[in-house]
Amino acid sequence: MYRTHTCGELSIADINKEVTLAGWVQTVRKFGSITFVDLRDRYGITQLLFSETLNVEMDANPLGREFVLQVKGGVNERSNKNKNIPTGDIEIIVSELRVLNKSAVPPFTIQDDTDGGDDIRMKYRFLDLRRNAVKKNIELRYAVNRAARNYLHKNNFIDIETPFLIKSTPEGARDFVVPSRMNPGEFYALPQSPQTFKQLLMVSGYDRYYQIVKCFRDEDLRADRQPEFTQIDCEMAFVEQEDILQMFESMIKDIFKEVVGIEYNEPVERMTWEEAMWNYGNDKPDIRFDIKLTNLKSPFREIPEKQQLAAATGFNVFDNAETVIAINVPGCSDYSRKQTDELIEWVKRPQIGMGGLAFIKYNHDETIKSSFDKFFNEVELGFLTDHCKAKRGDLILILAGKEERTRKAISDLRLYMGERLGLRKPEEFKLLWVTDFPLFEYDEEGNRWVARHHPFTSPKPEHIEVMINNAAEIKNADKYLEHPYANIKANAYDMVLNGNEIGGGSIRIFQKDLQQKMFTALGMSQEEAQYKFGFLIGAFEYGAPPHGGIAFGFDRLCAILGGSESIRDFIAFPKNNSGRDIMIDAPSTIDDKQLDELNIKLNL
Amino acid sequence: MYRTHTCGELSIADINKEVTLAGWVQTVRKFGSITFVDLRDRYGITQLLFSETLNVEMDANPLGREFVLQVKGGVNERSNKNKNIPTGDIEIIVSELRVLNKSAVPPFTIQDDTDGGDDIRMKYRFLDLRRNAVKKNIELRYAVNRAARNYLHKNNFIDIETPFLIKSTPEGARDFVVPSRMNPGEFYALPQSPQTFKQLLMVSGYDRYYQIVKCFRDEDLRADRQPEFTQIDCEMAFVEQEDILQMFESMIKDIFKEVVGIEYNEPVERMTWEEAMWNYGNDKPDIRFDIKLTNLKSPFREIPEKQQLAAATGFNVFDNAETVIAINVPGCSDYSRKQTDELIEWVKRPQIGMGGLAFIKYNHDETIKSSFDKFFNEVELGFLTDHCKAKRGDLILILAGKEERTRKAISDLRLYMGERLGLRKPEEFKLLWVTDFPLFEYDEEGNRWVARHHPFTSPKPEHIEVMINNAAEIKNADKYLEHPYANIKANAYDMVLNGNEIGGGSIRIFQKDLQQKMFTALGMSQEEAQYKFGFLIGAFEYGAPPHGGIAFGFDRLCAILGGSESIRDFIAFPKNNSGRDIMIDAPSTIDDKQLDELNIKLNL
Repeated sequence: MYRTHTCGELSIADINKEVTLAGWVQTVRKFGSITFVDLRDRYGITQLLFSETLNVEMDANPLGREFVLQVKGGVNERSNKNKNIPTGDIEIIVSELRVLNKSAVPPFTIQDDTDGGDDIRMKYRFLDLRRNAVKKNIELRYAVNRAARNYLHKNNFIDIETPFLIKSTPEGARDFVVPSRMNPGEFYALPQSPQTFKQLLMVSGYDRYYQIVKCFRDEDLRADRQPEFTQIDCEMAFVEQEDILQMFESMIKDIFKEVVGIEYNEPVERMTWEEAMWNYGNDKPDIRFDIKLTNLKSPFREIPEKQQLAAATGFNVFDNAETVIAINVPGCSDYSRKQTDELIEWVKRPQIGMGGLAFIKYNHDETIKSSFDKFFNEVELGFLTDHCKAKRGDLILILAGKEERTRKAISDLRLYMGERLGLRKPEEFKLLWVTDFPLFEYDEEGNRWVARHHPFTSPKPEHIEVMINNAAEIKNADKYLEHPYANIKANAYDMVLNGNEIGGGSIRIFQKDLQQKMFTALGMSQEEAQYKFGFLIGAFEYGAPPHGGIAFGFDRLCAILGGSESIRDFIAFPKNNSGRDIMIDAPSTIDDKQLDELNIKLNL
Repeated sequence: MYRTHTCGELSIADINKEVTLAGWVQTVRKFGSITFVDLRDRYGITQLLFSETLNVEMDANPLGREFVLQVKGGVNERSNKNKNIPTGDIEIIVSELRVLNKSAVPPFTIQDDTDGGDDIRMKYRFLDLRRNAVKKNIELRYAVNRAARNYLHKNNFIDIETPFLIKSTPEGARDFVVPSRMNPGEFYALPQSPQTFKQLLMVSGYDRYYQIVKCFRDEDLRADRQPEFTQIDCEMAFVEQEDILQMFESMIKDIFKEVVGIEYNEPVERMTWEEAMWNYGNDKPDIRFDIKLTNLKSPFREIPEKQQLAAATGFNVFDNAETVIAINVPGCSDYSRKQTDELIEWVKRPQIGMGGLAFIKYNHDETIKSSFDKFFNEVELGFLTDHCKAKRGDLILILAGKEERTRKAISDLRLYMGERLGLRKPEEFKLLWVTDFPLFEYDEEGNRWVARHHPFTSPKPEHIEVMINNAAEIKNADKYLEHPYANIKANAYDMVLNGNEIGGGSIRIFQKDLQQKMFTALGMSQEEAQYKFGFLIGAFEYGAPPHGGIAFGFDRLCAILGGSESIRDFIAFPKNNSGRDIMIDAPSTIDDKQLDELNIKLNL
């Protein structure tokens, strides 16, 4: 062992001990004939004091930042204590110095506030990982891992490894594939998730399974997506939805407690997908603040007649819109023209893509002013403010347009206002279950139904008949919403944390016939279903138990717990947005010999 | 929840409780108007008793093996107790029965002694996994996983995930590769191990790393190799070899205790690679029995002149052989002609490939008889038995031939005799460290040196000069053993358990110059080294600490602890010898669209 102690553990209790430390040079400070060096390792920083004799040596061979040292010396009480670090009461009077390795000058400083840009830090990730700011993320990730495992172990779950070289059955996202040398012309696929294997394990009787496991998706990378990512993957047999919700909200609460010391004792809120969409405009609402959407005009939902913004108002923006939706922002009625203009510009940005923004100020003096006073009198505006449950001092923001885009835009605006008003507190954690997702989603391109979650998710029991008794075919694409499948809800649920989906799952189909019906509904021929999922259909013939599960996005969960928006900060060796690891420079070309052995050639 | 209790937990203490159970039908036994059903789940078996009313229903819809049931009923004390199972004192008087799912008749019986052959059980692996014999292996695997993690956690190791999509740098085994859609013409490789990444983590200051992680090797599969396998992968910084040996023999002892209840308190034996090769003929000796090899003639080792079997004996088999090696098998001097003939046939099998076997019987009456009495008189035979340290009653077995093959053969014969004599006790666990492996291995095909462990392993400090001061070139292939590199030993070590290598590692090179010298020694040009391992050489420029590590073959470790020879039994979803998963039928062909997107085509 190169050391007797780490750089994070010596204190006043160790005074006069002879110790050996090893670590990296953080800083060198010379004062005349003595030199102070801060020595750093994973556990902390300890101050070294080199007096005259060693100083002469050091003048000949100066120490630089990031040099690796081994030093022997005595622990001494500091005259000038540093209360900011645990070892701040002591220093080591160095008697022996050994430079274990030198270091070139690092391309950026190894400090919390580094001078390195993103690219250079990705290229020298091994140096970036030395920074405390990154290290605490990696440590937090391990703490989450550990807490999850301990909880699941305590609850009788068993970690069972599922294979990485599996079969390509693209449904939704693209598979990464692996050519098989031993089976020319054939390929393995890397798993997008262990879904079918964990279901097989339920069929096998391992009624509580988990794995913290890498998954792979060959997608065009949006910001903050990684081609390989980690899931906490779980499945249970002989359970209903309620059992799963309880089991896993307890797990997340346990992780909160173990990792960030938060006692989350209140029950986790729940809402259906319908409620989430109506009240928040998206399926993963941030409920840390309670601004909700109000429909003023809607193609779907009935609105009390008196309050319906009818064509009669003469305000084309509303009259011609499919949907008009408002949010009521508390305490902003005194926004200046500049401020409302800013908001208008914000919704016009291409990412939001709205034509404009209407607003109503319900002033403290009870007057009501709107951006469309020409078309609405005070009584009519009063109807609106009433309907939006606005109070004096509130600002009502209104978007109008096509239903889907407008709902998305008002949801974004809601989050933006929450942010602007400091209502999305980073230190506050608010969990939410969203349940009863639609079973199907309409795929415009193919004019067909696709599985919203995946093809193994079960419909609500009361909707099974609808599915069995109706064909999947959509005769009139324009009216797909009138197809009976559009209203089938699934036993599917997402866990949402502060506006991020951190987990999702479902109760699965476990009956062979229903699973086959599902494949048919998704437009798979029986042959195709048999080719892709024959093993699962086969397994369902031999006594499959009722089962369900959930998978948590481990990277995302860690990022949120660590107070960051970026999962990349919580991955030791992440890839960039083109899926490259720029540190090792992968992917890369391979030898012709390798290609030949794999029976493939390039086709550029 | 479909149940109030599992099938493994009810006992006499639960009498008269109303309970709900769910599980699989193990057996159905009808006795007149009552029926007994054994209901099975992961936790055990509980007897159900169906009386008359339900029997009528069941006659109409009979239960079959592997049906999934939910039953309600009262816990009743059995009149006829079964002491072999934990629930054997009670039974459930069923009041309500719900068949959750039916089952076709399984293709083999779900019992410890199944009637299913290997192939059918692989195809229906989800049913095989129901068998208790397989389930206990999967559970043992989890117990090993858990014990290893707990030990490493306790010792300040941190689990850090390394990437799966990395760069292809084939050295030794073939990489599995993954075409990159986003980077046309380029490929990722799946890691053969996280070797370079864990070293980078040491450079980053995470001084104790571990991971239980899948690795991939595209090798022609020998029996009991899998293309994907699991490692317990560990690395430490600021350590010497001794620290690693101590840390990890404690880990294995901890696993012994936690998983199989064995207190392994004696120190782990150690021997150098040289000793292992001389005394046991291979580098992973089974030291549960102490038969050792005796060299009677050797091209390398000096043997006392008197005892050297010189050409003068006139026995061509010895005279013409490069090597003559003996083992002394205790207590077998009375082997019959039939028995010695059997041994002769055994060494002639193609797997062993020897021309014959000579033997000496040191009889209980002190007479000495050999199979080559024509050439050796009793005095000469006496020299041999003395040299082999034989005692009365021993049988000396002797092989002669080319050094390498003979050594391998006598080592195999030693194991065979150990097996035959019951000296390799399955319930006995004997650990061994083999140290000081050669740094290089001679590659005949390329007439060059290859790394015996891997290119990152450091030479013994006292051999570094030899490496630096000599070129790698081998001028005379026949005399490669005379090249200075042949005698360079490495800071490398293997852990051996009962004759199986369960782990191996080394102290790594951490100096940039030495690492570059190593690449040169292996015949890599500087450009090639830079292309493949530039990131590591780069990292060594910025303060790399001394470090080393080890990786354990997790599948193998589990198999040995579970008393099996086959790792496949300890993998939930293994592949067969052609790398196929015959359950899901992978690998398989993929769509032309997928190939096109990946910019590759088949080349069959």
